Amino acid sequence: MKPWFRFEVLATAGKARAGIFHTPHGPLPTPVFAPVGTRAAVRALTPAQVRAAGATLVLANTYHLYLRPGADLVAEMGGLHRFMAWDGPILTDSGGFQVFSLGDLREVDDDGVTFRSHLDGSLHRFTPEISIRVQEQLGADIIMAFDECPEPYDRAYNEQALQRTHRWAERSLRAHTRRDQALFGIVQGGVFPDLREQSARFIASLGFPGHAIGGLSVGETKAEMYAMVDLVTDILPADKPRYLMGVGTPEDLVEGIRRGIDMFDCVLPTRLARHGTAMLRDGRRLNLRNARFARDPAPLDPQCGCYTCRTFSRAYLRHLVVSKEMLAASLLSIHNIHTLTQLAREMRQAILEGRFEAWVAEWKAQATATASRPTSAEEHDQHAPGP
Amino acid sequence: MKPWFRFEVLATAGKARAGIFHTPHGPLPTPVFAPVGTRAAVRALTPAQVRAAGATLVLANTYHLYLRPGADLVAEMGGLHRFMAWDGPILTDSGGFQVFSLGDLREVDDDGVTFRSHLDGSLHRFTPEISIRVQEQLGADIIMAFDECPEPYDRAYNEQALQRTHRWAERSLRAHTRRDQALFGIVQGGVFPDLREQSARFIASLGFPGHAIGGLSVGETKAEMYAMVDLVTDILPADKPRYLMGVGTPEDLVEGIRRGIDMFDCVLPTRLARHGTAMLRDGRRLNLRNARFARDPAPLDPQCGCYTCRTFSRAYLRHLVVSKEMLAASLLSIHNIHTLTQLAREMRQAILEGRFEAWVAEWKAQATATASRPTSAEEHDQHAPGP
Repeated sequence: MKPWFRFEVLATAGKARAGIFHTPHGPLPTPVFAPVGTRAAVRALTPAQVRAAGATLVLANTYHLYLRPGADLVAEMGGLHRFMAWDGPILTDSGGFQVFSLGDLREVDDDGVTFRSHLDGSLHRFTPEISIRVQEQLGADIIMAFDECPEPYDRAYNEQALQRTHRWAERSLRAHTRRDQALFGIVQGGVFPDLREQSARFIASLGFPGHAIGGLSVGETKAEMYAMVDLVTDILPADKPRYLMGVGTPEDLVEGIRRGIDMFDCVLPTRLARHGTAMLRDGRRLNLRNARFARDPAPLDPQCGCYTCRTFSRAYLRHLVVSKEMLAASLLSIHNIHTLTQLAREMRQAILEGRFEAWVAEWKAQATATASRPTSAEEHDQHAPGP
Repeated sequence: MKPWFRFEVLATAGKARAGIFHTPHGPLPTPVFAPVGTRAAVRALTPAQVRAAGATLVLANTYHLYLRPGADLVAEMGGLHRFMAWDGPILTDSGGFQVFSLGDLREVDDDGVTFRSHLDGSLHRFTPEISIRVQEQLGADIIMAFDECPEPYDRAYNEQALQRTHRWAERSLRAHTRRDQALFGIVQGGVFPDLREQSARFIASLGFPGHAIGGLSVGETKAEMYAMVDLVTDILPADKPRYLMGVGTPEDLVEGIRRGIDMFDCVLPTRLARHGTAMLRDGRRLNLRNARFARDPAPLDPQCGCYTCRTFSRAYLRHLVVSKEMLAASLLSIHNIHTLTQLAREMRQAILEGRFEAWVAEWKAQATATASRPTSAEEHDQHAPGP
């Protein structure tokens, strides 16, 4: 057996698991939340700050890096790890999600997708083979099969897209040559249980070292998302890591981990930070533009151990947000990333110690209690702001 | 004698001095370069990063903090040190320079200045008494007398402004009550030797614990600036620190320290960083937008020991600049601040070790050599970009 990409499940609690995924850049304890460094940089943070905020895995976007600075340049500079100075595990997506998000700027056929760059309008093409080659040049530890991401409620489109995604999964596997990268297959199927089941069975049959669930958190309800996750994790093999793509509120982490998810990523903590919003452990959000924080000497979250909470008052953070100081984005990103990575870490520990159900009950009681407090109702998790 | 604000001169080399200025927030080794944290934050950097970049003193702007969040709020939050979490010495300016920079938005009379906020157009008034009260609320270790900053070439205006600056210096002294703050007097006089001499003699006679030279680096030539500095430092008492306000290129530090300056501050390192420009020790500047850095694996400055140079290539930094990643400003600010603080530190060490003249000769030879290399001629220190 290869030393890398072995997934050790150390303990379980119902479907929840605490494990270790072994990568060329070290062992990755799971469950884990990964912040997003779209352009080989987690916005407004140095790698040292990302690490200090509790992150052990970061995600970078293949579409963006392919366009700029170019995957060949990253390869020439020694690969993503050296380029962005992140010595822990890195995950790249396939570029599929971004390309499909381009709307009118892309055209899909059975072989791949032709698209125009959002930067300069130049014409490009991604196929499974090209996506894998680009990801091999970038050199992440964990890379993704090229897939199609349809709108979740369109049955006919989802049926057609699913067949393409499955063919592309096979082609991605065949195209992949680097032994020091784990290629994950992606389950699609929108909000349709039969399609999700079909996709999970097919993708699981291909022998990927890990599996991702794509096409969720894109407009469907929370109930639909959790139902799809539940269904898919019942089918995916237990001895390989499961990654819920693009998901990341505190509630989603709790509900995902309960349903057997091991890995998450989301732009939410850094995007909300740039909008002056702090994520709290219980799901509430603090919009620091609110005047009631102007003279508030308390930290964002008195229970939080991050640099921001150990060092600064809400009053100071509000001043930075209102003054449009870049430091606001850095300090709130540190806090938000810490909140999510720490939440995953807490759950891991609870699973290891055989007290996960009690942990979940306690977390839910706290989340419900704070959500029902009149002054904070407005701040409960709902929607992400625009890009 | 008070334990604070004693200025120990440890060694001299011609007019240059290596010393320690004792403040309530610790001993401040001089010569020293201070980065600027206009709104109680050095742009794009945490206090931990500012410290790691080599800074021991930071400057904050009274005008900006008076308008937002308000000096009373800062006082209520425990003062500037606690508010911005900087536990070393802090210096505030008087607000005079900013108010006079408002142009049509301000009107000066013998008692003070009435001005409109650049934020919301609201009407405000600064007098020496108000400036000192605001600075006492902010609570910096080193504060400044309220002065008038005229255009440097207008003789008649400079004569008139100088009288006002001198009256305001006396009023600032009388208004000042906090024993844990050192109030510095400011020498003005434009580019006119007789006015500078008159001002230095008068300000020196008032018994301030330190002296600043204002109204330079505002449009006059380098030769004029250095001549004014030379003249003024011959007059100011040797047993008190001398602060050259708003000055900060490598050349200015070398020439200022040679002429007996102990303290500098400038927005240049952080402003240039936000414009994608690195300052090198020898005075050159690297504009990272330049395509020739696209595949350059070298650090900004192979001799530099800052986090940015120890960790990242020019290729990566260029990618961040071109991609408009906020991290570019952070990493370049770290490097630029390190360049200037380290330069002051090197000169201090050279003075202490009796080899300052040799150090200066060596620095100049290096600066000349690099300036004359064809590929870097375009990058030599010239002008700061716009705000």
